[in-house]
Amino acid sequence: MDAFQGIIKFFVNQKTIIGYSFMALLTVGSERLFSLVAFKCPCSAENTVYGLVFLLAPAWVLLILGFFVNNRSWKLFTGCCVNPRKMFPRGHNCHFFYVLGQIILSSLVAPMMWLSVALLNGTFYECAMSGTKSERLLELICKGKPKECWEELNKVSCGKTSMTTTDNEELKLSLQAQSQILGWFLICSASFFSLLTTCYARCRSKVSYLQLNFWKTYAQKEKEQLEDTILDYANKLSERNLKCFFENKRPDAFPMPTFAAWEAAS
Amino acid sequence: MDAFQGIIKFFVNQKTIIGYSFMALLTVGSERLFSLVAFKCPCSAENTVYGLVFLLAPAWVLLILGFFVNNRSWKLFTGCCVNPRKMFPRGHNCHFFYVLGQIILSSLVAPMMWLSVALLNGTFYECAMSGTKSERLLELICKGKPKECWEELNKVSCGKTSMTTTDNEELKLSLQAQSQILGWFLICSASFFSLLTTCYARCRSKVSYLQLNFWKTYAQKEKEQLEDTILDYANKLSERNLKCFFENKRPDAFPMPTFAAWEAAS
Amino acid sequence: MDAFQGIIKFFVNQKTIIGYSFMALLTVGSERLFSLVAFKCPCSAENTVYGLVFLLAPAWVLLILGFFVNNRSWKLFTGCCVNPRKMFPRGHNCHFFYVLGQIILSSLVAPMMWLSVALLNGTFYECAMSGTKSERLLELICKGKPKECWEELNKVSCGKTSMTTTDNEELKLSLQAQSQILGWFLICSASFFSLLTTCYARCRSKVSYLQLNFWKTYAQKEKEQLEDTILDYANKLSERNLKCFFENKRPDAFPMPTFAAWEAAS
Repeated sequence: MDAFQGIIKFFVNQKTIIGYSFMALLTVGSERLFSLVAFKCPCSAENTVYGLVFLLAPAWVLLILGFFVNNRSWKLFTGCCVNPRKMFPRGHNCHFFYVLGQIILSSLVAPMMWLSVALLNGTFYECAMSGTKSERLLELICKGKPKECWEELNKVSCGKTSMTTTDNEELKLSLQAQSQILGWFLICSASFFSLLTTCYARCRSKVSYLQLNFWKTYAQKEKEQLEDTILDYANKLSERNLKCFFENKRPDAFPMPTFAAWEAAS
Repeated sequence: MDAFQGIIKFFVNQKTIIGYSFMALLTVGSERLFSLVAFKCPCSAENTVYGLVFLLAPAWVLLILGFFVNNRSWKLFTGCCVNPRKMFPRGHNCHFFYVLGQIILSSLVAPMMWLSVALLNGTFYECAMSGTKSERLLELICKGKPKECWEELNKVSCGKTSMTTTDNEELKLSLQAQSQILGWFLICSASFFSLLTTCYARCRSKVSYLQLNFWKTYAQKEKEQLEDTILDYANKLSERNLKCFFENKRPDAFPMPTFAAWEAAS
Repeated sequence: MDAFQGIIKFFVNQKTIIGYSFMALLTVGSERLFSLVAFKCPCSAENTVYGLVFLLAPAWVLLILGFFVNNRSWKLFTGCCVNPRKMFPRGHNCHFFYVLGQIILSSLVAPMMWLSVALLNGTFYECAMSGTKSERLLELICKGKPKECWEELNKVSCGKTSMTTTDNEELKLSLQAQSQILGWFLICSASFFSLLTTCYARCRSKVSYLQLNFWKTYAQKEKEQLEDTILDYANKLSERNLKCFFENKRPDAFPMPTFAAWEAAS
């Protein structure tokens, strides 16, 4: 029984890691699904737009979803029109941009995952690049390839060019290789950047490591107890109001925190 | 047992997300069913009407269904002819349009989902566009295609044109690509728009984030308890009335809230 | 256990939706069965009558069935010959037509479903239209088709025309497309109309939203308890009567509501 509790505790501690792994798996799965079921490269002049849309649109949607799911963004924006002082407190003009930056950074995780997975797979990039009209990109892709490459590049993904099968296959492999190189580059730079920002944030913190750990545990405990208390109070208040309503009485006074107190607690 | 309760609590908290995912799955499923079972492009001059009807009619039905399911719309309209002051209270002339806007926005979720799924699939759009008579659209679609494209475009979805199979396949792919690009565009702009409106609504709120959380919990609790109380009162009242009826007695007085109280509580 | 009860409660609340979904499934199933087993287009001059009968007769039967199933229609008509004042109470001459309208509207749901499903399937409409003799309809259907279309349209559903198979197939597809467009049009307008009437009825209601909810709960509870009480009283009365009969006694007095009270309660 003790071992079982230990396992559960371990998993609860690793909540963040498990959450991210689950998200990564979901991303890989949905990318495979998309590229198999929905993605059909048109092999015409629309290649570039089509490929880029499949590469970027889901990333955009995931970014917006990240904003929606993030509690901090709502904490920041709720009531900001009525009380603009809240967003730009005196002497801390940067506070708003600091929090906004934090929100954007944490919302970027999912889109980055999508982009990495999509680039590592290579289907979308291959289609997008094969429709290019830019001279310099064509120069780069078709270097040392037969002359047809310049004119029929957009038919490469469908394999319907007048080139030999070997040449066609070679072009496809080369495009996919570029996509995967780009993908790894994105992953490497994103992870390095996240390390740097975390280091910087920790460096600027005014408390020591142990103290920070304590505050994290405290914050979590407080959140849990706050939820319970809110539920409790809501229960009592609604019971009182309904009773008064059906019995045609004036409600008794109910002790509630003032608006300023709520505001400060947020 | 504790872990199990935690899981249930988690799912209850994510109710909205689970509901929307379920709705999305249902939409995808019914779209597949429709396009496989019911949809047969006529490949004649009726193509445009037929495709547009399959694209837009279910969205329209879903919009109306959204109105029906939404409790707020009934709260708004109930008794509004008898008491027009309710819809346009003094000094808050915009209140009616504000609530109506909220209802319309939340009813738009399902139709948007349908349109997105249908456009990403591409069958309906392909049929609708292949029946076009407009010179400019034809120019756009048939650019760089053989001359038959201008005359036999409406037979493309059935593959019964006098063009080569490759050309036909290319035209179909290109139409489907346009449909998917449009679908992604719709999804991206809809998600961005929903983020903007939610942000704006939160910005205008007069209470802080924590207070809002409290009121949400309160509203839910009150709703649950209201249902129980209503059931209780209805039970008692009906028991009394039936007893009086069968025993030929005058009913006793029964304490009930006045009409004005009901009205105010709504 | 709590979660399980929540699920049951959810399903009980969604009773109406589940009922309608079940009805829709039943309609689709029986329509499929009819068009596969019973429907054989005669491909002669009787086409129009045959198709229209299959399209409209089940709708008529469902309308009548709707009247039978509806409790309110029996409440309205029971005893109306003996007491015509009941149907046309003084000062409320419209009351009869108002209730009748309600009954007709709620009975129209099932026929509308049948018509929609049958039109979306298209078999019945195809047969009905292919037997047309009207010049204008023929003009509409056979536009741009070979000359045989005018003479052999009624053989199209069986595929026994002297036209090529392609032309025949095209004609069939075009007729089915018309049927489906008509079906979607019917669904869209019916849903819009039902939204409008519900809105209007709610607007005219004299009570607020919450009060309406209370009365609905009350009516249901009263109905349940009335059934129990009736059973109880009937039990007692029959026991007394039988006992008296076998023991050759005069029955004791039994307290019963008067006729006027019954009438008023209905």
